[in-house]
Amino acid sequence: VIEKLFMNTIKKITKIPDPTIARLPIYSRCLIELMDAGQKMVSSEEIAALTGIKASQFRKDLSYFGGFGVQGYGYHIKQLFEKISGIMNLHQKNNVVLIGAGNLGSALANYPGFAKWNFSICEIYDKDPKKIGKKIGGIKIKDIKNFPKKCKYPIALIAVPGEKAKEIAENLTKCGIKAILNFSGKKLLKKNTEIIRNVDLTHELAILSYYLATHKGNG
Amino acid sequence: VIEKLFMNTIKKITKIPDPTIARLPIYSRCLIELMDAGQKMVSSEEIAALTGIKASQFRKDLSYFGGFGVQGYGYHIKQLFEKISGIMNLHQKNNVVLIGAGNLGSALANYPGFAKWNFSICEIYDKDPKKIGKKIGGIKIKDIKNFPKKCKYPIALIAVPGEKAKEIAENLTKCGIKAILNFSGKKLLKKNTEIIRNVDLTHELAILSYYLATHKGNG
Repeated sequence: VIEKLFMNTIKKITKIPDPTIARLPIYSRCLIELMDAGQKMVSSEEIAALTGIKASQFRKDLSYFGGFGVQGYGYHIKQLFEKISGIMNLHQKNNVVLIGAGNLGSALANYPGFAKWNFSICEIYDKDPKKIGKKIGGIKIKDIKNFPKKCKYPIALIAVPGEKAKEIAENLTKCGIKAILNFSGKKLLKKNTEIIRNVDLTHELAILSYYLATHKGNG
Repeated sequence: VIEKLFMNTIKKITKIPDPTIARLPIYSRCLIELMDAGQKMVSSEEIAALTGIKASQFRKDLSYFGGFGVQGYGYHIKQLFEKISGIMNLHQKNNVVLIGAGNLGSALANYPGFAKWNFSICEIYDKDPKKIGKKIGGIKIKDIKNFPKKCKYPIALIAVPGEKAKEIAENLTKCGIKAILNFSGKKLLKKNTEIIRNVDLTHELAILSYYLATHKGNG
């Protein structure tokens, strides 16, 4: 009930900036590492040193959700981790479906990070008869034709070739999928589904290339 | 020479915000799609509709590199694309090495997006004797023990298990690698290598989970 009240309060806040939301998992990851190391309290300066995000930015980000710090003592690591997990809805198990059982789909099905954050790939679909019936990450690949008309899981990962992504996303939305993490490399827009995030591995490489070029100081 | 002058000018600008750099590939991707559709000019409002990034933000981002727009006519798509490519050092072919030939490494070796942006995975290394000598994405997997003492390519992709990432990164740096795109899921810090970007696929899923939770309005 408290959790629900808490989320409703967050909803009332007009608009939390997207970059703040994007930094929350970075803080979570850092807090996990500190917990693993047995540490109990942490200062914003320490968070800054570990994440590369300024201490002032960290404090400002947390202020959107109410201040969690104790003056002069910093932040209680476990409490802060649990609050951020609650904000991101990671305190409960989240089942997700995976569409596409190629190289990238197999990598996602075997990605160890998901389980640590309470995500579980529970169903995998592909259209390739050679793949259907085989297992990846311990899950049997099903025929996409048999995708349920009313899918009980709200999140799908798309790891199909780019040219297929739009059609797949539209069909998933019709079947009740509310949020898509799109790995196809072809950008999907909000009109294709309610909540979408596009992961383009090339973008990261391009950003790296920029820093390398400016670091070296030549073009 | 002009290109070099241009990059030197960029270098002189004290500090371009990281979020601006992170948006450049999104603009590039959008411009590619417009070029493919045969369009010649584009307005900042059109860019906003296609990318989801505000027109004012787009104009501000470009202003860091000098304004490219023509008042009343918008932006010449091909020229703008070439300028952004130049800024990110994507106007020349960038050879990169890949460490790790597991599921994720195989996905990266076969990722079609890289070639479109002038990236080419030219060498692949692993330590698993069962993988060494086999090919992924047309490239033969070499023994990591034979990694060159002075690697002629500056960029490496790391797709090894998290617990191995730090050691690998340190060794790569000793061999001349200047920039690392880390897919291991274990965060690497700047002290491990000069230029580093950590890609954590779980982070994107966590962000999606947040938007789904707030959209639905329950925890």
